[in-house]
Amino acid sequence: MKGTVLYAPGDVRFEERDDPTIVKPTDAIIRMSATCICGSDLWPYRGINPVTQPTPMGHEYCGIVEEVGRGVTSVKPGQFVIGSFFASDNTCPNCLAGYQSGCQHAEFVGTAQAPVLRVPLADGTLVATADVPSDDLIPNLLALSDVMGTGWFAAVAANVKPGKTVAVVGDGAVGLLGVLSAKQMGAERVIAMSRRESRQKLAREFGATDIVTERGDEGVARIKEMTGGIGADSVLECVGTQESMRQAILSTRKGGSLGYVGVPHGVELNVEELFYAHVRLHGGPAPVRRFLPELIDLVLKGKINPGKVFDLTLPLDQVAEGYRAMDERRAIKTLLRP
Amino acid sequence: MKGTVLYAPGDVRFEERDDPTIVKPTDAIIRMSATCICGSDLWPYRGINPVTQPTPMGHEYCGIVEEVGRGVTSVKPGQFVIGSFFASDNTCPNCLAGYQSGCQHAEFVGTAQAPVLRVPLADGTLVATADVPSDDLIPNLLALSDVMGTGWFAAVAANVKPGKTVAVVGDGAVGLLGVLSAKQMGAERVIAMSRRESRQKLAREFGATDIVTERGDEGVARIKEMTGGIGADSVLECVGTQESMRQAILSTRKGGSLGYVGVPHGVELNVEELFYAHVRLHGGPAPVRRFLPELIDLVLKGKINPGKVFDLTLPLDQVAEGYRAMDERRAIKTLLRP
Repeated sequence: MKGTVLYAPGDVRFEERDDPTIVKPTDAIIRMSATCICGSDLWPYRGINPVTQPTPMGHEYCGIVEEVGRGVTSVKPGQFVIGSFFASDNTCPNCLAGYQSGCQHAEFVGTAQAPVLRVPLADGTLVATADVPSDDLIPNLLALSDVMGTGWFAAVAANVKPGKTVAVVGDGAVGLLGVLSAKQMGAERVIAMSRRESRQKLAREFGATDIVTERGDEGVARIKEMTGGIGADSVLECVGTQESMRQAILSTRKGGSLGYVGVPHGVELNVEELFYAHVRLHGGPAPVRRFLPELIDLVLKGKINPGKVFDLTLPLDQVAEGYRAMDERRAIKTLLRP
Repeated sequence: MKGTVLYAPGDVRFEERDDPTIVKPTDAIIRMSATCICGSDLWPYRGINPVTQPTPMGHEYCGIVEEVGRGVTSVKPGQFVIGSFFASDNTCPNCLAGYQSGCQHAEFVGTAQAPVLRVPLADGTLVATADVPSDDLIPNLLALSDVMGTGWFAAVAANVKPGKTVAVVGDGAVGLLGVLSAKQMGAERVIAMSRRESRQKLAREFGATDIVTERGDEGVARIKEMTGGIGADSVLECVGTQESMRQAILSTRKGGSLGYVGVPHGVELNVEELFYAHVRLHGGPAPVRRFLPELIDLVLKGKINPGKVFDLTLPLDQVAEGYRAMDERRAIKTLLRP
């Protein structure tokens, strides 16, 4: 088969690779219905994370099970499944506590921008739907594999509750789905921080009640102004830079909660500032597996439509153009069809 | 009257100062039953915080109201009262959310190592007991003014619950009262991290079930070993240094909670480490006022005895010796009687 490999910053190739096979009895092989490109894929693509060797890419996936190892009991060939970017056994104490992305046996699933994928720990990782879904549902279901699960976790970690005021820092796909999550959880006011018109529009569609275009200290001042001087009850940090983290901390009211899911890049927190801010901080790589059953149900019932973040769809063999479009911000997120 | 003034590192004087008077109609003047020296007073005493001018000292107090301003309605002369180191109006949104130490009108009460004290915002700050308590209760009640309220907040922030496993980093007075708090809240296992025998003994009296003498990475390894490899459900950080904070983060299980109350001194957090630790972080200057009614009740019912952390009692005019004894670790905490 052919699959996606990053050779160097800006150098994405779709090239011949070995077909995945069952390596361990707990593996499954799935044929991809769709895959996509993540904002975090842009870190190495832009050279911010070093690329030291040709690296297969992709960690978001859904598709049809083709084959399972002899130890797999919960999914079988022919079923449609979704999994997370971290394979997990779903039985260790960390998994049982709901932190499957911190599973004691976690393995990163990193070769998903390809037509066929090996998923380790299939029983703990994959969730099957009762029926094979219709094609128009694929973008919504694919989104659950990472970006929607991550936005949802940001809202859970930020303790979003009905009637509360929520601010979202970051208008990438995760931030936009953080808006959708906050709305779905009953937040009364959802403030999206965004400067780009197309993203503001999608944020409003997803339930944002207010848009703030200011950033940094000006953004903080604006949030304070909108919340009687005290800050938002919940803030979702969906970027991962020093500036976005600081903006998020200072936008949260005392005793309020900050959920951070942007993979931190060289972020150092001044703990004294955090101390006097009285903020509750929680985040990390989203334990997507925890949320999959609930989110699949919401998609199948038509309550959420996270697939709207895909504003570009390409055949998988045009993956390089997908990266370019996202890098140049021509697209929010690219869906790839094998 | 005479009061305590810090002139330079190591130079504490008990010298003539103006008698406090009502400055604003919301003030109260109280005659101290007892005051004490805080671990945080040692930061400037040791020159770690700069001393730029002669500075009155002391922020822990309880005593009898002598006089109130004309705007004060909730306390009156003759009553025994306890207050927090941050005066608060107890009516602003931050106070109503339970963060009185982040009151929009907060004032630090910093001249308490003296026989008489002016307390601003008396209605919001002071809590009176029904009767004037007997003298033997004074140490227990004085402790509520900061050190016990701070240990309690560490346990609240660390989400201590019945049946859980708790680790406490720091064996100063706050850490020891963090142990007492965790026990009182029903923790099943309370691990005190301490190397000093006298403090280990008090920790056991307060309810510690285990003592860990290792620090840093070895301390983390020991906690992991004691918790089936995953870390403690709740960790209380009661020191405020880079090492103690890191030790606390890495000792917490994924999804567990870290309550930090040690005033941070030059602590920079690597957010990537925090991100992958999946820890919930909450802390700051303790909103002691929130807890005063409950803690006063526990003391008056004889359920807690936080005054045991005072292992040295001196007449107030010997305050300089009190600082020396704590600096040289001859005393955990010094109580001063006017």
